Amino acid sequence: MSKFFITGCFENGDEIKLDGPNSHHVRHVLRMKTGQELTVCDGRGFDYLCSLSRFDDDSVFVSVNSKLKTPAEPTVLVSLFVAMPKSDKLETVIQKAVELGVYEITPFFSSRCVSRPDDRAQARKTERFRKISEEAAKQSGRGIIPNIHEPVGFDDMLKKATEHDLSLMAYEGERNVSLLNALQNKGNFLRVSAVIGSEGGFTSGEAEAANASGLITVSLGPRIMRCETAPIAMLSAIMFFTGNF
Amino acid sequence: MSKFFITGCFENGDEIKLDGPNSHHVRHVLRMKTGQELTVCDGRGFDYLCSLSRFDDDSVFVSVNSKLKTPAEPTVLVSLFVAMPKSDKLETVIQKAVELGVYEITPFFSSRCVSRPDDRAQARKTERFRKISEEAAKQSGRGIIPNIHEPVGFDDMLKKATEHDLSLMAYEGERNVSLLNALQNKGNFLRVSAVIGSEGGFTSGEAEAANASGLITVSLGPRIMRCETAPIAMLSAIMFFTGNF
Repeated sequence: MSKFFITGCFENGDEIKLDGPNSHHVRHVLRMKTGQELTVCDGRGFDYLCSLSRFDDDSVFVSVNSKLKTPAEPTVLVSLFVAMPKSDKLETVIQKAVELGVYEITPFFSSRCVSRPDDRAQARKTERFRKISEEAAKQSGRGIIPNIHEPVGFDDMLKKATEHDLSLMAYEGERNVSLLNALQNKGNFLRVSAVIGSEGGFTSGEAEAANASGLITVSLGPRIMRCETAPIAMLSAIMFFTGNF
Repeated sequence: MSKFFITGCFENGDEIKLDGPNSHHVRHVLRMKTGQELTVCDGRGFDYLCSLSRFDDDSVFVSVNSKLKTPAEPTVLVSLFVAMPKSDKLETVIQKAVELGVYEITPFFSSRCVSRPDDRAQARKTERFRKISEEAAKQSGRGIIPNIHEPVGFDDMLKKATEHDLSLMAYEGERNVSLLNALQNKGNFLRVSAVIGSEGGFTSGEAEAANASGLITVSLGPRIMRCETAPIAMLSAIMFFTGNF
C-alpha cells in the first residue's frame, strides 16, 4: 500500500489533508479514487491506515480508519557516521542504510577524504541525500524518515558519536576487537554509533584520537571492503545481532 | 600489495611466469621493476609472496619467496542463488558479495523475474559477471575467484541449493522463522545456500515448492529491502554469525 509522510498527530476519524507532491502523487501518479486506501505516516513512529474521502482543487483529503505503531521500526537506534566518499557512493549508502533501519546519518570529513565540496555544492548534496532518505523510507515501509545531517569535521564527529550507549569505529588496523566482541561485551544498549571511513580508511592518528574520545575501534574481518560496502555490512550485523532482522 | 590470480601450484624458490593481462598490468599499469614485490594467488586458497626476477618480450617472471594460506578466506562456504533482477543490479550484488566472502553465485529465473536475456545477451552478461568477480576478489584480497555460474531455471536452482548443510530462502511471507533462528537451530555447518528473490520476491507457490525441496524459508525482518540489498544483508549476517567478520 502507498505510504505518505506528513507532519502531525492524528486519531481515528480525523481527516488529514495531503497537498503538494503528496497530492500530486495520489492524483496523477497513482490516479486514486475516493474510497481507496493508503497509509499516512507521521514520521515519528505512527502509521495511519486511511481511505480517500474527497478532493478539492489542490489537495486530497483522507480519513483515518486506524492508528498503529509502525511495525518496521527497529528496537535499536543506530547513528551512522560516514566519512565523505568520492562520487555518488554516499547516495548508495544512504539508500541501503535506510532500508536496513538506520536512525540517522552524519557525513564527516577525515584526513583521507578526497571529496571536499564547497558550501553551495554541499547544500545541493545534502538536499539530494534527504530526498533519497525519504524515498527509501517510503519504499521500505519505515516509520520515520532518517535524518541526514549536514557534514561535520572530524572532532565534531567524535563529540557526537560518543554521546550514545555504545560507540564503534570500523578500523582496518584493529587486530584484537571484532564487531561481535564489542556488541557482546556491551550487552544491552538502545543507541549505537557506527563510524566508517572513506576510501583508504582512517590514519592511525585518527584511530588513536577516536579511542581517546571513547570510541571502540573494531575489525570487520580480514577482507578489504569498499567504503560503501562496510557501512551496509556493519549495519546489517548490528540489526541481526539485536534481533531486528 | 598488488595481487595476481593464476592457475598452478608452487613452492618456495619456484619461478612463476605472468603473461597476458597480468604481464601488461605489471609492465604498463604498475610499471614495476625487478626486485619489487607482488602477491600471486592460485585461486584455490594459497598466496605466494613473490619478487619480480626478470622480463622477456611478452612475459614477466617472479620468484616465490613464501607460500601461505590466504588469510582472507572465510571458514564457511556460502553459495548465493540470486533471482535475476532488472538492469545492472546483479553486478552490484556480485561485487559486494565477493568482498563479503561469498563462495559462488548462481543466478536463476523465478516467475517474477522480468529480465529474460536471450542466449547471446546472457553469454555477454555472464562474461561480465565473471570479470566483476575477479576484480572484486583482487581488490578485497580474496584467496579464490568466486565462480559465477550460468543461470538456471527455478527447479534446477532447488536441486543445487539443497545439496548443502543448510539451505535458506529469504521469503517476505515467512512470519515465524528468522534468519537468526535458522542459523542457531542448525548449529555447525560448513556449506550454506542462501536463495534470494528478484523485484517482487517469490510467489507463495514458489515458497511452498522450496519448503517441499528442503529449503528453510526465513524472514529478513519487517522492512522491505530492495532485491539488491537483501543478499548483501543476508550474507553480512551469515559471515557475522559464523565469526568471519
